Amino acid sequence: MRVLITGGAGLLGAKLAKRLLERGTLANAQGRQTPITRITLLDVIPAKGFDDPRIAVVTGDIADAKVIEAVLTPETDSVFHLAAIVSGQAEADFELGMRINFDATRLILERARRNGNKPRVVFTSSVAVFGGELPEKVPDSQVLTPQSSYGAQKVMGELLISDYSRKGFIDGRALRMPTVCVRPGAPNKAASSFASGIIREPLNGVEAICPVAPQTPMWLLSPRHAIDSLIHGHDIDGSLFGSSRALSLPGLATTVQDMVAALERVAGPEVAQRIRWQQDPAVIRIVNSWPGNFVTTRANAMGFKHDESFDDIIRAYIEDEMKTA
Amino acid sequence: MRVLITGGAGLLGAKLAKRLLERGTLANAQGRQTPITRITLLDVIPAKGFDDPRIAVVTGDIADAKVIEAVLTPETDSVFHLAAIVSGQAEADFELGMRINFDATRLILERARRNGNKPRVVFTSSVAVFGGELPEKVPDSQVLTPQSSYGAQKVMGELLISDYSRKGFIDGRALRMPTVCVRPGAPNKAASSFASGIIREPLNGVEAICPVAPQTPMWLLSPRHAIDSLIHGHDIDGSLFGSSRALSLPGLATTVQDMVAALERVAGPEVAQRIRWQQDPAVIRIVNSWPGNFVTTRANAMGFKHDESFDDIIRAYIEDEMKTA
Repeated sequence: MRVLITGGAGLLGAKLAKRLLERGTLANAQGRQTPITRITLLDVIPAKGFDDPRIAVVTGDIADAKVIEAVLTPETDSVFHLAAIVSGQAEADFELGMRINFDATRLILERARRNGNKPRVVFTSSVAVFGGELPEKVPDSQVLTPQSSYGAQKVMGELLISDYSRKGFIDGRALRMPTVCVRPGAPNKAASSFASGIIREPLNGVEAICPVAPQTPMWLLSPRHAIDSLIHGHDIDGSLFGSSRALSLPGLATTVQDMVAALERVAGPEVAQRIRWQQDPAVIRIVNSWPGNFVTTRANAMGFKHDESFDDIIRAYIEDEMKTA
Repeated sequence: MRVLITGGAGLLGAKLAKRLLERGTLANAQGRQTPITRITLLDVIPAKGFDDPRIAVVTGDIADAKVIEAVLTPETDSVFHLAAIVSGQAEADFELGMRINFDATRLILERARRNGNKPRVVFTSSVAVFGGELPEKVPDSQVLTPQSSYGAQKVMGELLISDYSRKGFIDGRALRMPTVCVRPGAPNKAASSFASGIIREPLNGVEAICPVAPQTPMWLLSPRHAIDSLIHGHDIDGSLFGSSRALSLPGLATTVQDMVAALERVAGPEVAQRIRWQQDPAVIRIVNSWPGNFVTTRANAMGFKHDESFDDIIRAYIEDEMKTA
C-alpha cells in the first residue's frame, strides 16, 4: 500500500516514516495489515536521512493544488496529514495559518474525495481546540471554544474530517495531540516550544529560558508514544470513533516545576540549574488557554497509550537522541 | 449607518429589512442607536416590495468576491449574514453547501477584515450544529458533533466569527436559530420545511404531508421573535458573549403532535385533518439528529426572548400573513 506523510521532514513525520519502514505494514481499507510499498514524504524542505527504496521525498507547498494532485493519487491508501503552522506563528500571521492549517487540509480532503478510493486520513489536531472556561480535567464531552487562531483552524479541520468521513468520502481520524515533548533539534515558533527547550537545552549544556510560571500545568506525550498513537489511530476501525472522528489522546499530566524536578532527578541539579525563568506574556496567554489535564475515556477504551512518568520521557529522549551524538 | 443583509430576498432578510426601516436605527460601533441611511439587500434573486429610498437591492452570487467587494465597503457598519443553502440541499449537494454556507461566509469576513472598520456581523447559525448523543435538554456547554454537512458548515462559520472577533477584525455574533415556524410562502429544501408546511398548507385549504413521527420534538421560533432576536443580537455589547461568539437562542419546545393539536384549537379539526402522515427516512434522519429542547441560560441572561405558546405562533402567522390576502 501507498502512504503519504505531509510534514514529512518534521519531527513526527520523519520518525513516523522510520517506524513504518521498520514495521513494514499498515491496515488497509479492510483493516488487514498490508505491506507498505511506498511512503511519500511531502514538506517545504526535503526530508533527509532516508535511503530506503520505499521512500519518495517530495518538496513543495502543501497549499498548492498541483502539489497535492501529484502526491495524493487514487493509488494512495493512507494519508498522515501532519503539516501545520504552529500556534505562535499562526497567531502572529493569520493569513499564513489559515492557508496552511485550513486551506491545505481542505485541499487534501477534496483531492481524496475526488480520487474516490476512500483513503484513511489521520489528521493531527491539538489541545489548542480547547479554551475559555475549562474544568480542571477536560472530558471528551468538553465544548470547543478555542482562544487562538491555530485552535480554531484545527477545529475546522476536525469538522471536515468528521463530515468527509460521515459522507463516505474518506475514512478519517483527527487525533488531538498533547504537547509533544521532548522534541529534539532547534526551538520552533510553537507557544509550547519551551516545554522541550527547558529539558533539551540544559541536557546539551545550554541555558534555556522558561517563559511560563513553574506551576503551569502541562499535558505531554513523548515522541515515541506520539508515533504509536498515530499508527494505532490509523489502524483501528473507524466506526469505533462514533459520532465524531475527533479524539483527545491520552497524555501525561504534569507541571513545569515537576518537569524540572524530573530533569534534576535524571540528569542532576547542575543541569536543571541551566533553566532561567523569564515570563513572556504572549506565550503565557496562549499556553494558559490550553487545558493541562484530561479524562480521555474514549481514547483509553480504544486502546491508546501514554507515558507513565516524565522521568521515563527524559530517559527515552537521552536514549533516542543523545546516544548517537 | 449602512447595513448589508445577505439573503435579503428571503423570508428573514425581507422581514428584517422592513422592521429596520420601521425602527430607523441600530446600535453603532459604540453601542449608540444611530439612524440607518442605507440597507443593501443582496440575494441571488431581487428583493421585492420595497419603495423606501434607504433600500438598495443588489442581485448577485454571494460566493463571488467581486459581488462582496461591491456591497461590503469600509462604510458598511453592520452585516446580517443570513444567506444559506438549507440543510436538505446542503446534504444532497455537498459542493454547493460548502461554497455558499462556508466559502461565502469566509469571503464576507475576509472583506470585513480588509475594510478595517470592524463592522458588527450577525451570522445565523442553527441547531443543526448539534448531533450525535444528546441529552434531553441541550445546555450551552454541549459539545458540537454535527451529523449533517449543513451543521458542519455552520459550526465552521461560528468558529470564524469567534476568531475574527477575538482578533478584533470584526465584532461578530453567531446566533443559533431554532426552526423558524410558521414560514409563509412555498416549501423549501430544508429538512425542517414540513414544520411550517403542516400549519401553512392546511390553513390555506391545501393538504400537507408530515414526513416525521407525531412525537418528534421540535424547537421553534416565530418569524416575529426571529427578527427580534437578530436585532437584539446585533445591538447588545459583544463582550457579553464571553469566550465564544456562538449562542443558542431561546425557543419554544414542542412536538409535532402538539403543533397539530394547536392548529386544531386555533383553526378547527377540519383544518388539522388536511395533514397526511407519510414518513420520509431522509428527512427523519436529519431532523432526528437535531435536539428538540435546550437550556439557553446564556441567551436568557443576555435578554433574548421566545414565543410562549404555539397557539400564539399560529395566530401571529394568520395576522401577519393571511389578513392581507
